[in-house]
Amino acid sequence: MNLRKPVADRSSLASLGEDGLLRLLTRRWRHGPGVRTGVGDDCAVLEGRRKDHFLLFKTDSVVEGVHFSPETPLRLVGRKALARALSDVAAMGGRPLYALIALALPPTSAPADVQALYRGIERLARRFAVELVGGELSRSRQLVLTIALLGETAGHLPLLRSGARPEDGLYVTGSLGGSLESGRHLRFSPRLAEGQWLAQGHWATSLMDISDGLASDLPRLARSSRVEFSLKDSQIPRHRGCSLSQAFRDGEDYELLFTVAPEREVALRKEWPFPTRLSRIGVCLRPSFALSRKQSYSHGFDHFRLS
Amino acid sequence: MNLRKPVADRSSLASLGEDGLLRLLTRRWRHGPGVRTGVGDDCAVLEGRRKDHFLLFKTDSVVEGVHFSPETPLRLVGRKALARALSDVAAMGGRPLYALIALALPPTSAPADVQALYRGIERLARRFAVELVGGELSRSRQLVLTIALLGETAGHLPLLRSGARPEDGLYVTGSLGGSLESGRHLRFSPRLAEGQWLAQGHWATSLMDISDGLASDLPRLARSSRVEFSLKDSQIPRHRGCSLSQAFRDGEDYELLFTVAPEREVALRKEWPFPTRLSRIGVCLRPSFALSRKQSYSHGFDHFRLS
Repeated sequence: MNLRKPVADRSSLASLGEDGLLRLLTRRWRHGPGVRTGVGDDCAVLEGRRKDHFLLFKTDSVVEGVHFSPETPLRLVGRKALARALSDVAAMGGRPLYALIALALPPTSAPADVQALYRGIERLARRFAVELVGGELSRSRQLVLTIALLGETAGHLPLLRSGARPEDGLYVTGSLGGSLESGRHLRFSPRLAEGQWLAQGHWATSLMDISDGLASDLPRLARSSRVEFSLKDSQIPRHRGCSLSQAFRDGEDYELLFTVAPEREVALRKEWPFPTRLSRIGVCLRPSFALSRKQSYSHGFDHFRLS
Repeated sequence: MNLRKPVADRSSLASLGEDGLLRLLTRRWRHGPGVRTGVGDDCAVLEGRRKDHFLLFKTDSVVEGVHFSPETPLRLVGRKALARALSDVAAMGGRPLYALIALALPPTSAPADVQALYRGIERLARRFAVELVGGELSRSRQLVLTIALLGETAGHLPLLRSGARPEDGLYVTGSLGGSLESGRHLRFSPRLAEGQWLAQGHWATSLMDISDGLASDLPRLARSSRVEFSLKDSQIPRHRGCSLSQAFRDGEDYELLFTVAPEREVALRKEWPFPTRLSRIGVCLRPSFALSRKQSYSHGFDHFRLS
């Protein structure tokens, strides 16, 4: 990785952070009746074919030197790009349908390398029944791969970040931390089946995926739902050899983070049908009861903020 | 522009060209019943709400140093990216609905510059009633802006590249050539009204937009429809001061190129309701009657091929 370290500057993106800048950029957007949720959740939610059918619309980009190193096999780069977008559909309880591949790369690249990248996408697409319906190539100095994904939920509303209520239990799938070091960020399985099960059974009150780390993503859930969380550090599931700080801050876990109404928690734990680990890591509180955010969470990954 | 000139190499993308590589990459793709048209047209066409409703799905990227120079005001960069994607929807006779903005840029960028880029997108979106429903930021060394667009056609099939038949007249809107030099590539109006009129009135048998130049795009229409074209050079509408070669090869015109059945040509020219210039530039021939492609067209812009 040879990204130049940006200079700290109050007038640069680094000083605002990704969330801060996106809020600034999109605060004037207004939506018509066809849009259920615009910016601010894992996917945009659009009205679908019928009353209980919704379209999920999402882009996700991976950049050389940021999301993968120049040494990463391109098959795994393609796989990761699609898997990240799929994780966003999982985070709404949705089913992925169609994907487009927008690839910018140096014109000196070997066709065999581009084929490998496509094969990585294709293999994962087949596994999750996603149809690839278009590809586009541009030349650039640095490889940037953007996946545009269209998905759906049928028979139920997508699960948003905004539905958590005080006293709900807070849950996470799988284990956290060490994703980049271990290479898991290139090989993870998006939790599509788990997300769909949570949505179809109306188990969760809110749902999102952990992409930037619990320390970055939990405050987003809190902000969207206007609640706070009390965490039980000892319950946070860590990958072998990972510290609590790593579980909080490493990011790239692509696990599901969700809340469950107290009266359904016993049944959830009993009926959870997946081998995927399920952990209750805390509880949802009214904002006034909570610790200050600064106290509760340390910093996770931000695409622009300097730590 | 300080892109390194790539080395000519038979094993690089430059030797295959964009079309050649995309054919290689996507030749194994198979589509289910929900996909009317996958790769190879201006947008992917998906089954919509009803029998006569179709979704159009498209991504388009602009890259610093390729589609705009580092000196281009970012407002115009944003405008151009959305306008290009809208031109692809126009090229199916469709109506644009929703857009997502995926932006990779250096973390040292000024927030005001990013705001300007967003304002350029927003202004054009408002004009064509496109709803912006999400934004995403990544860091990179070079600015790459990808727009994902969802559109529709209602009451009629999208107009494809594959419908031209021998004896159809070949038409083009507006004038060609000199787009980059004149700055028109930053300020053009996507021909959405014209495309919708052509589709709704069943005027055209095939339709596409001219993005890489007539010399690159006409062979694509010919290949998709399995026909050839005979062109009347004197009828090719050129911008003031442009040579025929420029009209053929400059690209970035974003005009519509379409074919019309002979029995409808008189009525088309009589009923064309737009101030936009309309030119009949040739006629469609059976392949065996045609000149060889090499003879008919010189080279237009290819993202990877070296000229």
